[in-house]
Amino acid sequence: MTVKVRGFRFSGISANIKKNGRRDLALAVADEPAVTAAVFTRNLVRAAPVVVAERRCQAGRARAVLVNSGNANACTGEPGLGATLESTGAVARALRVDPDEVLPASTGVIGSLLPAERIVTATPALVQALAEDGHDAFADAICTTDRWPKVAQAALPGGATVLGIAKGAGMIHPELGPPQATLLGFLFTDARVSQAVLQHTLQAAVNETFNVCSVDGDTSTNDAIFALASGASGSACDDASLLAAFTRVCEELARSIVADGEGTEHTVELSVSGLADDEQARRVARTIATSLLVKTALHGKDANWGRILAAAGRAGVPFDPAGARLSIAGVEVVRQGVAVGPEAEHEAHQRMREASYRIELQLGTGNGHVRYWMADLGHGYVDVNASYRS
Amino acid sequence: MTVKVRGFRFSGISANIKKNGRRDLALAVADEPAVTAAVFTRNLVRAAPVVVAERRCQAGRARAVLVNSGNANACTGEPGLGATLESTGAVARALRVDPDEVLPASTGVIGSLLPAERIVTATPALVQALAEDGHDAFADAICTTDRWPKVAQAALPGGATVLGIAKGAGMIHPELGPPQATLLGFLFTDARVSQAVLQHTLQAAVNETFNVCSVDGDTSTNDAIFALASGASGSACDDASLLAAFTRVCEELARSIVADGEGTEHTVELSVSGLADDEQARRVARTIATSLLVKTALHGKDANWGRILAAAGRAGVPFDPAGARLSIAGVEVVRQGVAVGPEAEHEAHQRMREASYRIELQLGTGNGHVRYWMADLGHGYVDVNASYRS
Repeated sequence: MTVKVRGFRFSGISANIKKNGRRDLALAVADEPAVTAAVFTRNLVRAAPVVVAERRCQAGRARAVLVNSGNANACTGEPGLGATLESTGAVARALRVDPDEVLPASTGVIGSLLPAERIVTATPALVQALAEDGHDAFADAICTTDRWPKVAQAALPGGATVLGIAKGAGMIHPELGPPQATLLGFLFTDARVSQAVLQHTLQAAVNETFNVCSVDGDTSTNDAIFALASGASGSACDDASLLAAFTRVCEELARSIVADGEGTEHTVELSVSGLADDEQARRVARTIATSLLVKTALHGKDANWGRILAAAGRAGVPFDPAGARLSIAGVEVVRQGVAVGPEAEHEAHQRMREASYRIELQLGTGNGHVRYWMADLGHGYVDVNASYRS
Repeated sequence: MTVKVRGFRFSGISANIKKNGRRDLALAVADEPAVTAAVFTRNLVRAAPVVVAERRCQAGRARAVLVNSGNANACTGEPGLGATLESTGAVARALRVDPDEVLPASTGVIGSLLPAERIVTATPALVQALAEDGHDAFADAICTTDRWPKVAQAALPGGATVLGIAKGAGMIHPELGPPQATLLGFLFTDARVSQAVLQHTLQAAVNETFNVCSVDGDTSTNDAIFALASGASGSACDDASLLAAFTRVCEELARSIVADGEGTEHTVELSVSGLADDEQARRVARTIATSLLVKTALHGKDANWGRILAAAGRAGVPFDPAGARLSIAGVEVVRQGVAVGPEAEHEAHQRMREASYRIELQLGTGNGHVRYWMADLGHGYVDVNASYRS
C-alpha cells in the first residue's frame, strides 16, 4: 500500500518483548504537535497505558504514539504505571518532546509487568527507524494473535488523507456508551481539523463500526483508538467528508478484525431491523452475535434459524415472534415466525460455505435497525485460547 | 436408586420421535389431582408446550406431566399448538382425566412440528408402562444430549419425600426475574402442601440453584420446572424443611446438569463476594461464567486470572480492582489486584486438573455474595454443536 499522510513518520521493530523475536514495538511521530482525540475501553479493569493515555489525551495535542505488543501491562498495579511512564519517558527524551505528548498503548498477556528496560534499550533503534512509509512496520509490530496486519485508507476532498491501522483478533467486543472502543486502532490524517470535531468524528465513526462488531464477547482491559491530525496537507475538510472517510476506514478495519478473529472461518454481516429503535436492534444483534449456539451453528454451515430466534428472544427486547422474517445468505428460511421449509434450509446450508455472507432478521415494522459484524466459532478458537500459557 | 414418593407413577418409552430408537416419551401421573407449581423460561420465543403448560398451571392442580424429547415443538406456530393439544388430549383420554390436567413439556430441535400422531399411537403403551418405580425410565426418556439421566431425592421430616428429575446439557443459562427457569425439571413430593407455599418454595429453590448455573449462556425456548405435590404421605411439612429439601434436590440436579454440559470437562463452583448486594455479585458471576476466554482458559487448566478480572470488569458493576482477591482451586493467585506470582499460578494449574473445583473472587467488603456453577469450554462443545443437522 502506498499511502501518503503528511506530517507523520512510523516505525516498528523487535524489542524482545515477544518470545518469538517478532516485531513488538511501534512508534508513530507527528512532526509538529498533532490535534488528538481518543476513545477507550469502558472495562472497569483498565491497563496502566489506558490510564496514562487517557490523562494525556485531555490536552488535545500529542506528538507520538508508542505501542508494544506481547504484554498488556494490565493488572500490574503501581509498578505497571511506573513501567509505562519509564518507557514513554525514554521515547520522549529521544524525540526531545514532553513526556505528556507521548501516548502509550499495550496489548498482550494480562498480569505481567511490562519490561520497560527492553523498551528503553530499543528506543534508539526505534527512533532511528522512523520513516514516512513506515506504517506497514508499525502495523506489523502491534499484532498479537492477528494473522495479518490491518491497514486502511481513504482520500478526503482537497487532497488530505486518512490512514487507519488496527490490531485485534480476540477479546473483541463493544462496550456500551461513550467513551468507548474495542481494540487498538490508530487514525492518522493530514487534514486540518479542530480537536472538538476530531473527537466527535472519531466517536461517531467508532459507534457505527468497531462498536457493532464482536469476535468473542470479551471486552479488553486495553482497548483504545486514537486519532491524530497533523494538518500538514494544509487542507481543511468539511465535517461530513471527514466522518465519511473515518467511517469507511474504521469499517474496513473492523471487518478485517472480525475476519481475522481467533479461529474465524466465516464473517457474517448481521442486519436486525423492524424494532422500535436502533438501540433495541443493537441489543438483539449483540445477543445473537455472542450466542455460542449461533456461532457454532455458523461454523457447521447449519441454517439453524431456531437458535437465532431463540437468541433474539432472550435479548430483553419486545417483539412478536410470530412476525419474524429471517434470511441467511440470501435465502429466506423463516416467514411469519415459522420455517419456510427444508429445501430453503438446504439451499442456505450450501451458501453458508462462503467465507462471508449476510443474515437479515426482521422483527417488526419499526425503524430501529443495526448492521453488526460477527464471527463463527469452531475448533480454531479453542486451539488459540485453551492452551496453557507457558 | 430406591425412592418412594407416594401417589405418583412414572413411565418412559420410545415413540419413534428420536431417530435412534431411544426412549423419547415420558409420563408422570398423580393418582389424585396434585397441587402444582411451575416456573417457565422468560425467553420471548416460547415453545407451544410452554404456552399450554403455563396456562394449565394457573389452576394450581394437575394430574399428569407428558414430556417428549427429540423435538422442542418451538417456532411451529398454530400447527405446533395443535400438536401439543392433540398429544396431551390423547393421554387425557387414556387416563380418563381432563385435558387441562395434563401438563406438556418438549425438548429437542427447534422449528420442527411435533409428530403428535406418534405420541397418540404410543399412548396406550405409555400408560400401560406406568409404575411406582418408573422414575428411572422417565428420567432416561427426557434426555437429549445428556450423557446421563439426572435424579435426586431428599427426605422430609414426617416421612414425606421429594424426588427430582431433570434433563439438560446445552442451551443452559438462567434468565432474570421471576417467573423463570432454565431447563426441564420435575419435582414430585408426597408431602401435603398448599399451592401458594409450593410455588413460593419452588421459585426460591430455583433462584439459588438452576438460576445460578450456566453451560453455554443460551436460554432455551422450552425451559420449564414443575413441582407436583400429591399429599399421599399424609404428612404436612414445615415450610423451612420443604425449602431446604427442594433446594438440596435442585442443587444436586443443577450441578449434574453443569457437569454434564455439552463438552464439559471441568465444573467450577464460582463464589463472588464483597459487592454491595447479591444482584451485583450475580451479574459479575454471570459475566465470568459466560466469558469465552475464561471458559477456554479453564479448559486449558490455565490459571489465567487476568481473563477472570477482565470479565468482572465488564460486568457493569462498580468495584475497586486494586482490592481484588482471587483464589483458584484453593490457591491464592491475586492479592490486592496484582499477581501473587508464577509459583502460585503453577500450583493452581496443577490443581485445575481436577474435574471439579472452586474459584473464589472477592471484590470488596460488601455483603453481596453468590455461588454460581459454570463449565469449561473445549473441543467437545464444538463437536456437539457445530455439525450440520442431517
